[in-house]
Amino acid sequence: MNRIFPTDPFSAYRQFFHLPSNTIYLDGNSLGLLPKAVADRLQYVIKEEWGVGLISSWNQAGWMELPQRVGAQIARLVGVEPADIVVGDSTSVNLFKCLGAAVQLRPQRRVILAETDNFSTDTYMAEGMAKLLGNGYQVRYLPPNTFDVRPYLDETVAVALLTHVHYKTAAKFDMKQVTQDVHDCGALMIWDLSHSTGAMPVQLAACQADFAVGCTYKYLNGGPGSPAFVYASPTIAEQTWQPLSGWLGHQAPFAFETHYRPNTAILRFIAGTPHILSLSALHESLKIWEQVDLDALREKSLALTDLFIQLLEQTCDGYGLEIVTPRSHEQRGSHVSVAFEHAYPVVQALIARGVIGDFRAPNIMRFGFAPLYVSFQDVVEAVAHLQDVLASHEYLAPQFQTRKSVT
Amino acid sequence: MNRIFPTDPFSAYRQFFHLPSNTIYLDGNSLGLLPKAVADRLQYVIKEEWGVGLISSWNQAGWMELPQRVGAQIARLVGVEPADIVVGDSTSVNLFKCLGAAVQLRPQRRVILAETDNFSTDTYMAEGMAKLLGNGYQVRYLPPNTFDVRPYLDETVAVALLTHVHYKTAAKFDMKQVTQDVHDCGALMIWDLSHSTGAMPVQLAACQADFAVGCTYKYLNGGPGSPAFVYASPTIAEQTWQPLSGWLGHQAPFAFETHYRPNTAILRFIAGTPHILSLSALHESLKIWEQVDLDALREKSLALTDLFIQLLEQTCDGYGLEIVTPRSHEQRGSHVSVAFEHAYPVVQALIARGVIGDFRAPNIMRFGFAPLYVSFQDVVEAVAHLQDVLASHEYLAPQFQTRKSVT
Repeated sequence: MNRIFPTDPFSAYRQFFHLPSNTIYLDGNSLGLLPKAVADRLQYVIKEEWGVGLISSWNQAGWMELPQRVGAQIARLVGVEPADIVVGDSTSVNLFKCLGAAVQLRPQRRVILAETDNFSTDTYMAEGMAKLLGNGYQVRYLPPNTFDVRPYLDETVAVALLTHVHYKTAAKFDMKQVTQDVHDCGALMIWDLSHSTGAMPVQLAACQADFAVGCTYKYLNGGPGSPAFVYASPTIAEQTWQPLSGWLGHQAPFAFETHYRPNTAILRFIAGTPHILSLSALHESLKIWEQVDLDALREKSLALTDLFIQLLEQTCDGYGLEIVTPRSHEQRGSHVSVAFEHAYPVVQALIARGVIGDFRAPNIMRFGFAPLYVSFQDVVEAVAHLQDVLASHEYLAPQFQTRKSVT
Repeated sequence: MNRIFPTDPFSAYRQFFHLPSNTIYLDGNSLGLLPKAVADRLQYVIKEEWGVGLISSWNQAGWMELPQRVGAQIARLVGVEPADIVVGDSTSVNLFKCLGAAVQLRPQRRVILAETDNFSTDTYMAEGMAKLLGNGYQVRYLPPNTFDVRPYLDETVAVALLTHVHYKTAAKFDMKQVTQDVHDCGALMIWDLSHSTGAMPVQLAACQADFAVGCTYKYLNGGPGSPAFVYASPTIAEQTWQPLSGWLGHQAPFAFETHYRPNTAILRFIAGTPHILSLSALHESLKIWEQVDLDALREKSLALTDLFIQLLEQTCDGYGLEIVTPRSHEQRGSHVSVAFEHAYPVVQALIARGVIGDFRAPNIMRFGFAPLYVSFQDVVEAVAHLQDVLASHEYLAPQFQTRKSVT
């Protein structure tokens, strides 16, 4: 098939990643590809920094400042100053820090606004916080597919915790409008950017978001379970503290004082000793992003998902697929989700053909288009495979039916 | 000097570690040496498990169960069943989980008993918890060098958080007696084992400890900032929950339910996605421990510290040094701390000679004897260097005076 694709301004980036042979990787929204430079970098960190430098590397190899340095690498991607973001712990743990910091700024308000069908760790952490606090604290849940939050806001809401791009449907909130709405009711705003960072420009500061967290092992290619980032606006951060007040968030950790004195602004969101090996891999991966034009990246992302949707509609009509991702560019992230009765075995059959997407219960096939390395040709081939799997009914084969958990 | 040393039953273990040339490493209580097998293992994890296996490695490479599998490797070292301990997050974060789990089991009691001069993250996390909870929650501080906790216990104490071996002095609590005392007043017991695990046998279950946390980058050689372990007695764990209720502590994470249902016992202490690279390094390092006889290890540890103290007294008399580590075997961990007015520059001068110890403010020189790889010859040479540094006054040289932070 001859097809004229849009120009790909990121075609040179694909070579920075290790792409397994015979693979079309549409799961970079779950675990990003391995940047080729990471393996050598980790050898150096292990053999030289740890093996030879030993404890001196906390200073001489800059381990101690790695949470800030890696944060600074992410700053431009989410529209904040380099000094206002740090990396460490998991997204879950960072959510707890932000929730704790938020509720103590609104002590008279006892409601955490969350999403019924957000990625589960977001609702679970909100629940954990409300349960620990007791005293009438509760989580209020937005119904699924609610994008106008105003009906759920009132003077009891202390903080809203929303995910910018939905993990399942890829539906996207209007960050500026929603943040404004939340502020208008006097509440604080936490954004989870796990499915937007590295897929599109994000303007946290311009939207006046109070807090944000995000995952780094998806579009940022930090490696399995790489540490998450956390942002707090400097004004807000200075007014509050966060409850996971570990020693490295202290103003003078090596003074070993008995009482906690929070460090400046976002630095007080650092808790325990950073996971240096995982953090070093992320640090190396993020070097790829230095010159990336985020507007061009978003344009390519939309072109990829547009092409996928268009081809799906052209070639897979009549199989009972339902595209659950919004068609409007303004409301869409960088993955496309398709509901289908046999979603699980179809995803397995595609994986057997080298087309890696993922399944999300109960009936979603999720295809992620990491715009830095997915090509338009990948999209064409992926849809051709999907059409073939559907037409041939090969997904009905027994080996594709057995459920295994995948992230 | 000819000297007859005690037999070293662990002499064969030294070869498993990378020891930089011309180095006597007495800081394994801060950051353990690099086990030689780790670099190759991480190459495999990065290039094969991540690079090729990609998301399938969550199942096929066992990433999903790594918190449990690494926990099981540590179980024998702390005297618990393999199924009762998991690894993930930092010591600080795990302390918060245990504190949260403890206070909700004693809702009428509002005091957390802590140590004034414990390693600072322990007191800071207790403070963070009390501040978040409000409502009269407070931290009660044991005075320095208090080993009989009974005068500080009463019916207001919900939980005691103590570190088994003191990070600065190496003074050791009587775990069985103190746990009994804490239980007798109706409170719960959290032990921080950061400075004991891998240096001596620990019997958490036999002492009926309720919770424990510990660092893995010291005597367990997991690498800089490697994830920490957390233990809860299975009976206690089933009765409570922990507030950092992330998705991987849920009974069915991939069901993506809206509400949190805690998994069985200690598995509910897992929070977010595990840091696989850091965890994999630790997993490899812990293989060294499979056959280690912990009683013999403790015997060697005491012989090393005995020898160090004895030589120090013989050769460094008159310089104004004060050994602050208890002489009694029952009360001592595996490091020896020496107070000295010029502690900082002496430690720097020793480091310049290849004898790596560390400084702890305001005036402590700390020498750690990781019994798996420190030799008796190391002890002799270290004391000879120390004596020489003191006698020659070389520590007064300007290059040794400038303060840098070290962990």
